[in-house]
Amino acid sequence: MSTKENALSIFALGGLNEIGKNMYAIEYSNDIVIIDCGNKFPDASLLGIDLIIPDMAYLVENKDKVSALIVTHGHEDHIGGIPFFLKKLNVPVYATRFTLGLIEIKLKEHKLLRESELVEINSNSKLKIGEMNVSFFKVTHSIPDCLGVIFHTPEGNIVHTGDFKFDLTPANNEHADIHKMAEIGKEGVLLLLSESTNAERPGLTPSEQMVGEHVEATFMKADRKVIVSTFASNISRVQQVVNAAHKTNRKLALLGRSMVNVVAVAIERGYLTVPDGMLIAPHEINEMAPEKVAILCTGSQGEPLAALARLSTGNFRGVDILPEDTVIIAAGPIPGNERNVTSIVDNLFALGAKVIYGSGSTSGMHVSGHGYQEDLKLMLTLMKPKYFIPIHGEFRMLHHHRLLAESVGVEKGNTFIINNGDVVEIEDGIARQTRTVPVGNTYVDGGDVGNIGEYVLRDRKQLSEDGMIMIILTISKAERKLMAEPETISRGFTDQDFSELRKNINELTVNTVNELQEENRNSRNVMKKQIKKSIREYVYTHTKKNPMIVPILIEI
Amino acid sequence: MSTKENALSIFALGGLNEIGKNMYAIEYSNDIVIIDCGNKFPDASLLGIDLIIPDMAYLVENKDKVSALIVTHGHEDHIGGIPFFLKKLNVPVYATRFTLGLIEIKLKEHKLLRESELVEINSNSKLKIGEMNVSFFKVTHSIPDCLGVIFHTPEGNIVHTGDFKFDLTPANNEHADIHKMAEIGKEGVLLLLSESTNAERPGLTPSEQMVGEHVEATFMKADRKVIVSTFASNISRVQQVVNAAHKTNRKLALLGRSMVNVVAVAIERGYLTVPDGMLIAPHEINEMAPEKVAILCTGSQGEPLAALARLSTGNFRGVDILPEDTVIIAAGPIPGNERNVTSIVDNLFALGAKVIYGSGSTSGMHVSGHGYQEDLKLMLTLMKPKYFIPIHGEFRMLHHHRLLAESVGVEKGNTFIINNGDVVEIEDGIARQTRTVPVGNTYVDGGDVGNIGEYVLRDRKQLSEDGMIMIILTISKAERKLMAEPETISRGFTDQDFSELRKNINELTVNTVNELQEENRNSRNVMKKQIKKSIREYVYTHTKKNPMIVPILIEI
Repeated sequence: MSTKENALSIFALGGLNEIGKNMYAIEYSNDIVIIDCGNKFPDASLLGIDLIIPDMAYLVENKDKVSALIVTHGHEDHIGGIPFFLKKLNVPVYATRFTLGLIEIKLKEHKLLRESELVEINSNSKLKIGEMNVSFFKVTHSIPDCLGVIFHTPEGNIVHTGDFKFDLTPANNEHADIHKMAEIGKEGVLLLLSESTNAERPGLTPSEQMVGEHVEATFMKADRKVIVSTFASNISRVQQVVNAAHKTNRKLALLGRSMVNVVAVAIERGYLTVPDGMLIAPHEINEMAPEKVAILCTGSQGEPLAALARLSTGNFRGVDILPEDTVIIAAGPIPGNERNVTSIVDNLFALGAKVIYGSGSTSGMHVSGHGYQEDLKLMLTLMKPKYFIPIHGEFRMLHHHRLLAESVGVEKGNTFIINNGDVVEIEDGIARQTRTVPVGNTYVDGGDVGNIGEYVLRDRKQLSEDGMIMIILTISKAERKLMAEPETISRGFTDQDFSELRKNINELTVNTVNELQEENRNSRNVMKKQIKKSIREYVYTHTKKNPMIVPILIEI
Repeated sequence: MSTKENALSIFALGGLNEIGKNMYAIEYSNDIVIIDCGNKFPDASLLGIDLIIPDMAYLVENKDKVSALIVTHGHEDHIGGIPFFLKKLNVPVYATRFTLGLIEIKLKEHKLLRESELVEINSNSKLKIGEMNVSFFKVTHSIPDCLGVIFHTPEGNIVHTGDFKFDLTPANNEHADIHKMAEIGKEGVLLLLSESTNAERPGLTPSEQMVGEHVEATFMKADRKVIVSTFASNISRVQQVVNAAHKTNRKLALLGRSMVNVVAVAIERGYLTVPDGMLIAPHEINEMAPEKVAILCTGSQGEPLAALARLSTGNFRGVDILPEDTVIIAAGPIPGNERNVTSIVDNLFALGAKVIYGSGSTSGMHVSGHGYQEDLKLMLTLMKPKYFIPIHGEFRMLHHHRLLAESVGVEKGNTFIINNGDVVEIEDGIARQTRTVPVGNTYVDGGDVGNIGEYVLRDRKQLSEDGMIMIILTISKAERKLMAEPETISRGFTDQDFSELRKNINELTVNTVNELQEENRNSRNVMKKQIKKSIREYVYTHTKKNPMIVPILIEI
């Protein structure tokens, strides 16, 4: 790599031109500091893939320079890649108390907790990493204990916002450090990296308190069970549900593994207050009068195996949704999840429940954790950066964020819309886009990390669309002659009796082998290739389908 | 079937508890009249399926009774199943002039046009089918020439609304027959079937004219090319684009097969007026000054092979989107298509275009063709039905539509929320839900219609997630002994070198065969079953993956 000695480099290993797998890096002299290490969930085209994490080859190659991983908050798109990161790089992880709680759950699952070096920080912590001093500021978001990060470098101050909105009446009363942000801005910010998720949306994000008011009003009106589904990590929202249940004299049951786990961490670490004796076990629900029970559950995104989906189809053992129960889906559907959520809503209505659903603006039961345009402009105004890199978003979001920056005074030409891997270097106060570092998607498929590539996915696509036909041929090694009738097997191709087609495929195979035999073109590879070709064409002509054709030659 | 002589039966073969494949039936005495015959597009879980159409077994079984297919309008979810229907049932098809134009395109593709009996009707037509008189009324929707249908039966009047909104200022000046609806209502409606698509949305649908105003304003401001993507069948919207282009002195090019085909039908049949000499061929675009050109194209739903997607990636031969061009996506994304659309928006912004996108309420470039709650209430108020069946919608939509009906006076208990196949019978003025008729989804997969079922889909799912491992064994017929090393092949499983795993699989196979041999449990089936089992377990333990295991036994 052509990095200059002492140049300050900024780049992303993930998070640009995508939503998910956030991972940013600040490199100065002999140190690389990583900010966040998230995962991303695959879209439907990535068949069989469980997770996507950033390709970390560059870091592994520069192992000795990687000094720290700083984590801004505990959402999956910021912590989901950490176990895979720590398997390759033994580096201290800095995060707040709540964030560490969630990271620990993950490391336990991967049996990595013991050997990992986890360092608790808070917004007043100060770190020295190589020649950089690092400090922090609190931001408000949809999970507790979130940080923005300031790198005080010899070149100047670099600020990373983390994920944020400006909630002036946060439900947990933990305010953002607006004064600290103003101070940093006054001191001078050379470069700001700010998140762009809602850069397309005009206005200011509504306060989380709005959700609390709607939840409480709904609890007040309900005269049977109330079931609330939300993100387990949104502890402010969970707290507001707890409060509403308490106010209406209800006990509370928790359903779903992540709800149980995360609430336990939140209570234990002091982020959530639940009155003594309020929590009950699921099996106790049926023993109580319905107007005395509330349920908090996972599955607000329509995940087919989560608690809400199972409740909606009567498949949650021991817990039933009954007519006149109230179900609140206190979360907007993340793009791509709409159909899963609405099919659950259909099922809940069919059970006779009252269902409150929809985006936050229609139901009042959700607000975004990501700042809208006015929030973003406020951050830019406070920080007054010379240079700006919009991060954490797809291209149109980054694009809109640039326009916002320019509207509040960032000079045209001083915003860098870059890709993962593009490096912005700063030297003598001047930023330039220079080299690139290798980046990419690493696919996690079961225990397979990084071994799934283009070929496998192409095969899976073909298999998923039209299945496969195998033709098994036994030929004699010496004379290259068929020793038996070919055998044809299919999977995922048709449920129809295809004996007719099979007969023709076998005939075609025999003819092909005989022809090749006559022409003396009877090597293993030529035979396979030729059989594949003729059968593919035959099958397509007769069925308009294109299954994978696998000729298997047994030579005896 | 237990139908009583002269009972009036109403049921759906598709369209209830789903969006798509609309097909309703009115059966009286010796006649079954079908209303619409649509298709539905598969969701991602139906691997390899191209289309879904209603299972028509009941109609085939009662072939002699099926007297007519009446088509309310030309959208795919109302006409897409017609070719498959006509292959099984030779029945006259009644539709308006524009609708017939679209049906003819379809029948030509299926080489069915010549033998089909297509009968043109309009809103003043009157048909006599068996003992039923059938008349029609015009409704406004997002495609020209739409009908509602009235069945005058000895039991009373049955009304089917078709798809509708109340647009009081329709862009094509073709008003709905509100007076006729009022008359029918006054005469008396025994049963109303009304569409429910937007029953969840409060208010009144905005007028199509709103889109025209926004389109025109955008054309006025644009100083380079303007590209508009919309549904080809929304001729009112196409007309408004034509008008805006004309007003700003632009020529117009059409891109995308369905845009070219449908616009041709619309011009030829008098539904669209394009000034002489205005249309240009795609290759002429580059010869003209950019401010003199507009483009109308397909692909507003993000379809990966349609014109807009190809334009956005620079893959439309001869046509380029250049910086400062304006792209209008004049259509809201249908649920499920959001991500495809936004990825096109990202690409367009990256090309430097100004992009106007989003739901209609944010961009002003789309209004729904389906009535909101106030539209639905107006229809119910005009018709004053005794009985009501909400149709054309998922459960929550039908549920909300019932509440709307009750709010304007339909008696509680007189609304039937039914499933496809549930029959409502009316006798002596009393409606009851009685028998069911067989219904279902017929999958179209290439040339395969109805042969794809549960097994194939289950196999495709497994293949798509973890691929497959084949183990080929050659054993001697007599001694049941292995005649060679087993051979292991995989597809869609891993891109990793899996020689280690393969070696172990082969060893395991040999061991399994030897054990079975010793135990004398060596029949073909036992061997295959046992090998499958041991390899499945081994592979899962070592990779956390569950590929399809296919043992192939060659006996020699």
